[in-house]
Amino acid sequence: MSDPKRLILNLFEMNCVSHITHGLWTLPGNNRHRFTDIEYWTELARILEGGGFDAVFLADVIGTYDVFRGGPETAIREGLQIPSNDPMLVVPAMAAVTRELGFGITFSTSYEPPFAFARRMSTLDHLTKGRVGWNIVTSYLPNAARNFGHDDEIAHDDRYALAEEYLEVLYKLWEGSWDDDAVLEDRDGKIYADPAKIRYIDHVSEHHRVAGPHLASPSRQRSPLLIQATASPRGIALAGRHAELVFTGGPSLEAIQATIAGIRDAAEAAGRSREDVRFVVGATVVVAATEQEARAKLAEFDREASLAGVLAHWSSTVDFLSYDRETTIGEVRLREGSSAEPFLRGAADELTVGEFLDTIVSFHREPFLAVGDPVQVADEIERWLDEYGIDGINLVQYHSFGTALDFIEHVVPELRRRGRLRPGYFPGETLRERVTGGSARLPDTHPAARFRGGANLDRVALTERSER
Amino acid sequence: MSDPKRLILNLFEMNCVSHITHGLWTLPGNNRHRFTDIEYWTELARILEGGGFDAVFLADVIGTYDVFRGGPETAIREGLQIPSNDPMLVVPAMAAVTRELGFGITFSTSYEPPFAFARRMSTLDHLTKGRVGWNIVTSYLPNAARNFGHDDEIAHDDRYALAEEYLEVLYKLWEGSWDDDAVLEDRDGKIYADPAKIRYIDHVSEHHRVAGPHLASPSRQRSPLLIQATASPRGIALAGRHAELVFTGGPSLEAIQATIAGIRDAAEAAGRSREDVRFVVGATVVVAATEQEARAKLAEFDREASLAGVLAHWSSTVDFLSYDRETTIGEVRLREGSSAEPFLRGAADELTVGEFLDTIVSFHREPFLAVGDPVQVADEIERWLDEYGIDGINLVQYHSFGTALDFIEHVVPELRRRGRLRPGYFPGETLRERVTGGSARLPDTHPAARFRGGANLDRVALTERSER
Repeated sequence: MSDPKRLILNLFEMNCVSHITHGLWTLPGNNRHRFTDIEYWTELARILEGGGFDAVFLADVIGTYDVFRGGPETAIREGLQIPSNDPMLVVPAMAAVTRELGFGITFSTSYEPPFAFARRMSTLDHLTKGRVGWNIVTSYLPNAARNFGHDDEIAHDDRYALAEEYLEVLYKLWEGSWDDDAVLEDRDGKIYADPAKIRYIDHVSEHHRVAGPHLASPSRQRSPLLIQATASPRGIALAGRHAELVFTGGPSLEAIQATIAGIRDAAEAAGRSREDVRFVVGATVVVAATEQEARAKLAEFDREASLAGVLAHWSSTVDFLSYDRETTIGEVRLREGSSAEPFLRGAADELTVGEFLDTIVSFHREPFLAVGDPVQVADEIERWLDEYGIDGINLVQYHSFGTALDFIEHVVPELRRRGRLRPGYFPGETLRERVTGGSARLPDTHPAARFRGGANLDRVALTERSER
Repeated sequence: MSDPKRLILNLFEMNCVSHITHGLWTLPGNNRHRFTDIEYWTELARILEGGGFDAVFLADVIGTYDVFRGGPETAIREGLQIPSNDPMLVVPAMAAVTRELGFGITFSTSYEPPFAFARRMSTLDHLTKGRVGWNIVTSYLPNAARNFGHDDEIAHDDRYALAEEYLEVLYKLWEGSWDDDAVLEDRDGKIYADPAKIRYIDHVSEHHRVAGPHLASPSRQRSPLLIQATASPRGIALAGRHAELVFTGGPSLEAIQATIAGIRDAAEAAGRSREDVRFVVGATVVVAATEQEARAKLAEFDREASLAGVLAHWSSTVDFLSYDRETTIGEVRLREGSSAEPFLRGAADELTVGEFLDTIVSFHREPFLAVGDPVQVADEIERWLDEYGIDGINLVQYHSFGTALDFIEHVVPELRRRGRLRPGYFPGETLRERVTGGSARLPDTHPAARFRGGANLDRVALTERSER
């Protein structure tokens, strides 16, 4: 008998007050208003590592939700991802107080230079000894574009073409610029590194010119664990080529399964294995000692939820309130890649704007909903793992740190009893090893691998460059 | 009798193996090869805070020294600032294990978008509760330019014009976009922040268009302590307008004093007070229980120093070895802003390249050199404070953590006895308060202050923006 499939267990987080469960930051005992304090993050990290979580998954935006009602007023009142602080900078604080917890960091390929980002991720991979993943996203908020010199958001297809270019630069820096054995640390000979094993990348493409060499030496994972959050057609193709872990979602189990199948197809078409990609979904888990208690808790969350916050969030690129209630969702000018689009794409003709607005609070919830006692929740998790084909969850927080603490108290022991979580960490394991079961480095079939040893660079030898 | 002038005490650091004292990373017990480990930084931070240091000052480059001998080989062998990891990312780790230590972070205005940088610094100011400073630099390495899409370094004057533009964007975001009382945290009313007190900046200038609003709420200092490392004419003008703390240097005490006077003049011309700018210099302090021991230690450092490393470092933009020994320094095409330029500017005709090369190891040393027992070192420090007009030092590390530990063991008690260091920290004080003796915020005479409350923005009201 083979081992049962193990759950990848991540906490879904964001460096802000109100990430996704709007209105709930005001609940008694909720710590979300402490997000600016370093102690919020170090406490959270200790809780998660003590409870056996694989990683904390940090979302991000680089602009404000200001389409709803023509301005950012609602977002500001709700604390809806504004203020929102940089996600990367809380990682070293959490890393300083943990040894095994992983970190998924969202960063957009749209607006910042790849050279600086490559170095930052390598720095984090060094500091954490291989515990970081990068959630590759393209930016969709119109305001984000205007914060970086553009008039409006970059068109969806162009964003993905840019992402491909960006990834190539990163792969050259992370995998191609230094050989594994470039650092000698030879104290007697006073030689730190071997110039013969380090090279310029001399990357030239439409939007990027980057000489290199990479400023960081090879870290444990070299390329961080490559994550992508997507459900859009172009996103599926990109994920199939590049992602090792996909955070996906949709309005229904069927939609999610279709996305998973599509990404596995795309992986195969790109010369990878269908099993090279793992899938996590956003999960609402409300657990208590009894089902009754759990249901009462969920009812409280629904009662306290902010309709305005949810609406402003879903109206990231189009204001639903600007349409008649009778308009069908198919007539709404949804932009691909917006927060609402993957959830509403299938609903084109069956749903009107009015019906959507009436159910929006629960509609906003992902299909993965487990409410009950520990056995009921573990049963539901097993169903998603074994019958629905997912590999893990990003646990949505309704209360910080209550959601994580409840899960650790009630669900973790039950999942361990069933062999669905490991009894503990393997010390020193990288995030890639933990998530993929493979080695610390990207597999040879991954497109990044083609640059190893300086292969496929336009110009590889330092000496050649020096002599010209 | 007034209190004696107190020393600003910083450790000079960089996230790399060989920052400035090349060849010495191989010394017994030196921890520099551990710079990729988070424990290097947390240990160092604890040592510095335990010893009463004001701040750790983190240098940075975003390219490789590849002019010397036409390539990066020497830099790579020496570990000369390559590998070099991101400086900002070690700050949260150090902040997680300290409460009072300050952090000076070098970041260049040349290549990265201001919106993202503004948010990162605000995030750090929040996480550290007001303990961060920004060392404003422009990039001078030709390779750095090529890592960010340029063909060669941006011309010196253009770099400084860019820096002025960059600062204006940052000031608008840090000081103008949110009012001090914008965050309400009203749990009963479920209102996190007040939209009437947060605004777009709608900045438009030659190189930057940034809409805002700033994504971060006001932190303790809002704008970080503004530091600048300079000695060049354009740098002097910029420092006079903007800097609260200047890290300066030069070939002689007289040159340093001339720079200090120039910056004070520039501050006055910009409507600030001459005393609004404080000055630290790089300092070599080799201390032991006896003068003899200290001299022996310095002799060991000189013996172990790497001539090639020093040469490659000084040849950041021009290769001294490519000139005849008889060439005068005045004939060498030094670029303003390069590492060698401020030290050699005064030497135009008196010094030949050959003479320079013969003395380069000690030439590289700053004029502030104190070698001896604790009393001798403290005497020298007092002379620099009282007679030469500096306010503090960036202690150059010859051995990590030996240099800091020696200073803490031998010099700190002697300076405290003389009233030159405070007996301890004032809990909760910001870096600006500690360094300037003023408030946590920039003074009203500073150019950043003109944007407060949304003044002097092109368009200030959210509603105005929403309605157009």
